[in-house]
Amino acid sequence: MEFLVHIEIALPPDLSDAERALLEQGERERGLELRASGAITRIWRIPGRRANVGIWSAEDATALHELLSSLPLFPWMDITVTPLARHPLEG
Amino acid sequence: MEFLVHIEIALPPDLSDAERALLEQGERERGLELRASGAITRIWRIPGRRANVGIWSAEDATALHELLSSLPLFPWMDITVTPLARHPLEG
Amino acid sequence: MEFLVHIEIALPPDLSDAERALLEQGERERGLELRASGAITRIWRIPGRRANVGIWSAEDATALHELLSSLPLFPWMDITVTPLARHPLEG
Amino acid sequence: MEFLVHIEIALPPDLSDAERALLEQGERERGLELRASGAITRIWRIPGRRANVGIWSAEDATALHELLSSLPLFPWMDITVTPLARHPLEG
Amino acid sequence: MEFLVHIEIALPPDLSDAERALLEQGERERGLELRASGAITRIWRIPGRRANVGIWSAEDATALHELLSSLPLFPWMDITVTPLARHPLEG
Amino acid sequence: MEFLVHIEIALPPDLSDAERALLEQGERERGLELRASGAITRIWRIPGRRANVGIWSAEDATALHELLSSLPLFPWMDITVTPLARHPLEG
Amino acid sequence: MEFLVHIEIALPPDLSDAERALLEQGERERGLELRASGAITRIWRIPGRRANVGIWSAEDATALHELLSSLPLFPWMDITVTPLARHPLEG
Amino acid sequence: MEFLVHIEIALPPDLSDAERALLEQGERERGLELRASGAITRIWRIPGRRANVGIWSAEDATALHELLSSLPLFPWMDITVTPLARHPLEG
Amino acid sequence: MEFLVHIEIALPPDLSDAERALLEQGERERGLELRASGAITRIWRIPGRRANVGIWSAEDATALHELLSSLPLFPWMDITVTPLARHPLEG
Amino acid sequence: MEFLVHIEIALPPDLSDAERALLEQGERERGLELRASGAITRIWRIPGRRANVGIWSAEDATALHELLSSLPLFPWMDITVTPLARHPLEG
Repeated sequence: MEFLVHIEIALPPDLSDAERALLEQGERERGLELRASGAITRIWRIPGRRANVGIWSAEDATALHELLSSLPLFPWMDITVTPLARHPLEG
Repeated sequence: MEFLVHIEIALPPDLSDAERALLEQGERERGLELRASGAITRIWRIPGRRANVGIWSAEDATALHELLSSLPLFPWMDITVTPLARHPLEG
Repeated sequence: MEFLVHIEIALPPDLSDAERALLEQGERERGLELRASGAITRIWRIPGRRANVGIWSAEDATALHELLSSLPLFPWMDITVTPLARHPLEG
Repeated sequence: MEFLVHIEIALPPDLSDAERALLEQGERERGLELRASGAITRIWRIPGRRANVGIWSAEDATALHELLSSLPLFPWMDITVTPLARHPLEG
Repeated sequence: MEFLVHIEIALPPDLSDAERALLEQGERERGLELRASGAITRIWRIPGRRANVGIWSAEDATALHELLSSLPLFPWMDITVTPLARHPLEG
Repeated sequence: MEFLVHIEIALPPDLSDAERALLEQGERERGLELRASGAITRIWRIPGRRANVGIWSAEDATALHELLSSLPLFPWMDITVTPLARHPLEG
Repeated sequence: MEFLVHIEIALPPDLSDAERALLEQGERERGLELRASGAITRIWRIPGRRANVGIWSAEDATALHELLSSLPLFPWMDITVTPLARHPLEG
Repeated sequence: MEFLVHIEIALPPDLSDAERALLEQGERERGLELRASGAITRIWRIPGRRANVGIWSAEDATALHELLSSLPLFPWMDITVTPLARHPLEG
Repeated sequence: MEFLVHIEIALPPDLSDAERALLEQGERERGLELRASGAITRIWRIPGRRANVGIWSAEDATALHELLSSLPLFPWMDITVTPLARHPLEG
Repeated sequence: MEFLVHIEIALPPDLSDAERALLEQGERERGLELRASGAITRIWRIPGRRANVGIWSAEDATALHELLSSLPLFPWMDITVTPLARHPLEG
C-alpha cells in the first residue's frame, strides 16, 4: 500500500555543528537504504522549507510507522500521513 | 488494516420525505451488511451532529474506498480517513 | 518541473445522469491523454472522497494551469498546487 | 460512556536517557493497567507521530479526567476528547 | 453529566414567513420544556449571531443526542458539544 | 453582564515543585474568593487538559480583565472571552 | 461598554434589483440612526469586501444584540463581536 | 501606496453562456484599463484556480476599494488585501 | 490613512523584574507620545490577554511600520494590520 | 518562472547584539546580490512584522530553494512559496 508522507524537520537550535553533521549523515544513509529497498518510491523537497513530501510504500500503517521511526531525525520531525488508494487512471 | 473514519452527512434540503426515507433505509441496510461482514468494527454517533466516527477494517485504502463508496448516502458525505497502526499496549 | 496537485471535485447536485455520465467520460478520456503524454506522472485517489492527489509535470506554472484547465470537470474542481524541488536522496 | 481520546506527546528535549526510560516504563505499566481494567477499550498509534487515538470508557467526564491525569506522561500530553453516542447500527 | 453545547442556526432562505413562524414557535415550546425539565441548565445568546451557548445536563452522550435532535430546528443546526468535568473550585 | 471564559494553562516546565505548589495554592485561594464573591458563577474542567471553562460575571470587559489578571497563574494563561447576551428562554 | 464588531454581508444572489435597492436604503437609514444615537462610534469598510468593522457602544451584550438585529440586512450578516476593555493609555 | 491583492472568483453556476461571456469581456476591458493606468502594477494567475494575485497601487484603502469594486466580477469575488511597506532592499 | 492594529505581547519568561519594569515603563512612555501625536487614535485592551486593538493613523504602511517598530516591546509583539477604508456612514 | 515568496523571520532570543548585527549585515549583503542578479524582482515589508513578501524569479523550484537557502537568516525563516502563472492581462 502507498502513502503520501509530508515531513517537516525542526532541529533543536542548540545542537553543535558536529552533532548536527553526524545526525544529517545518518539521516542520509538511512534515507538511501529506504530508497534502495523501495520503501521510499519518490521524494521531493518543499522549496524554502526544511521539509519534504514523499510516496512511501509499506504493507500497512504499522510497517510504515516502523520505517518512519527508524529515521535518525525522527524525534524532530512533524509527520503527516495520507493513505492513498488506486486511481482508475492508473488502470 | 484498520482506519478511523469520520463521516459528516449533509442531505440536500429539497429531498422529498419519500426519497429521504428510501435513502435512509438503504443506508441502514448497507450499514448492517458492513457491520456483519466485519468491515465496520465499531461505530459511534457524534452527539448533536449528523455525523459518526467508526473503526473500519479493509485490506488497504483502495478496498476501504470501495466500501465507503458503496454507501447509498456516499454522494452527500464528507469523509476523513486516518490510517491506524498497532499500539504496543495491544500486545 | 514537477508539482504536487491536490484536486477536490464537487459536481453540482442538479446534474442529470446523462450530463454527469458525459462529463465523467470526457474527464476520463482527457485524464488518459495526460497520463499518456507524461503530464500526470502518478495519481492516487484520496479514500472516501471525490478527490485525488497527483504528481504533475509541466514546464512551469503557466503550462500547468493550461493542463489543469483542460480537464472537463475543471469548473467544479478545487485545486491546490505545491511546487516540488529535487530532493538530495534522488541523486 | 465511551469517549474518543486523541493524545499527542511532546517530551521535553532536555530529558536524560535515564529519566526518559523511567517515564516510558511507568507510562507502559499504567497503560497496561488501564487496558486490563477496561478503561481503554482499544488504542492505536497514529503512524509517523508520537500520538495515539483510543476508545476510553468512563462513567463521565470527571472520571475520564482522573484516568487521563493518572498517566505519568500526562504533563506532556495534548489531549482532545470527543464524547461518543450509541449509533443505531450497534443495535 | 454536564455538556457545553454551542449551536449555530442557519434556516433555509426560501422558507415562507408562515413556515418560519411555525418552526420558531415549536422551537420555543420545546426549549421551554427542556429548561423546565432541567435538561438545559443555562442558555445564552451569542450577540450578533443566530447562535447560542448552553449548559446541558444528560445521563450521557446518547441521551444528549436525543435531547438535541428533539429540537424542531435541529435539521438546520450546526452543533458542537464539549464534555465537562467537575472543577475542584466547585467542591 | 456574563461572559464565557475559556482558560488554558501552560506552566513553565522548569518550575521547582515548591514554586509550583505555592502558585497552585495561591490560585486555589483566589479562585475560591472569586467563586464566593459571585465573579465566577460556574466553572468546569475540560477533561484531559489543564484547561477550564467558566461563566464569569462582571460589570463590563474592563472589570472582567481586572478579575482575570488577579489570578496568580494569569501570566501563564491563554484566555478567550465570549460576551453573552440574555436568551429568550431565560425569560 | 464598547465592542469591536466585524460584519461580513452576503446578500442572496437571486434578489431583484428593486429588492436590493430597498434593503440597502433601509440599511443606510438605520445605520445613520445608530451613528446619530452614538451606538456606532466609528465604522470603516474592509477594502475589497462587502464587510465593515466598527466600534459599537451598548450597555451590555444583550443591548448590543438588539442593536445589531435591528439592521435590515441582519439576516444576511455574519457578525463577530469582541468585547473591549479600557486600555491604560486612554487613562 | 502598494497593496498585495488576492482575488478568488466564484461565478454563479446558473449563468448562461452569453451572460458569462459578456461579464468576462467587461472584466477584461476594465482590467486592461487598470493595468494601463498603473493601478495594477503586476498580476499573476494562481495555477489551477480561478484566482489571481496582484500588486495594486492606490492612494489609500478607500481609493483601492473604489478600484476593486469597479470590476464587473466584483460581486462574485472574495478579496484579501495586504498593505505593503517599503523594504530596505528596495533602497 | 487609518489601520486596525491588533497586538499580542509575549515577553520572554526569563526576564528579571527590573528589566521587565524598565521595558514596560518605556513602552508606556512611547505609547503616550503616540497617543499625543495622533498616531494612535483609539486603543483598547482585549480582556484576559496581554493584547490590545487600536486605530492607528499613518500616511501609509511604511510610516505605520516605523511607528510600530519604535515601540520598546516591538521585538516581542505579534502584530496584525488591517487597512481601513472610509465607510459611507461616516459621510 | 516567478514565485510569490512570503518570509517570516524569528531570530533566537538569546543571540548577542554582535551576532545579530553580523547576521543582519550578511543578510543585507546577500539580499542586495539577489536583487542585483534579478532573483528578487520586487520585495516589500509586511507592516508590523519581521516579515516580507517578494516576487522571486528562478528556473524552477529546485533553483528557488538554492536561492532561498543561501540567505544567512534561512535557518530562522518560515517560508511559504506560491507558484505564479502568467495572467492574460499581462499579454
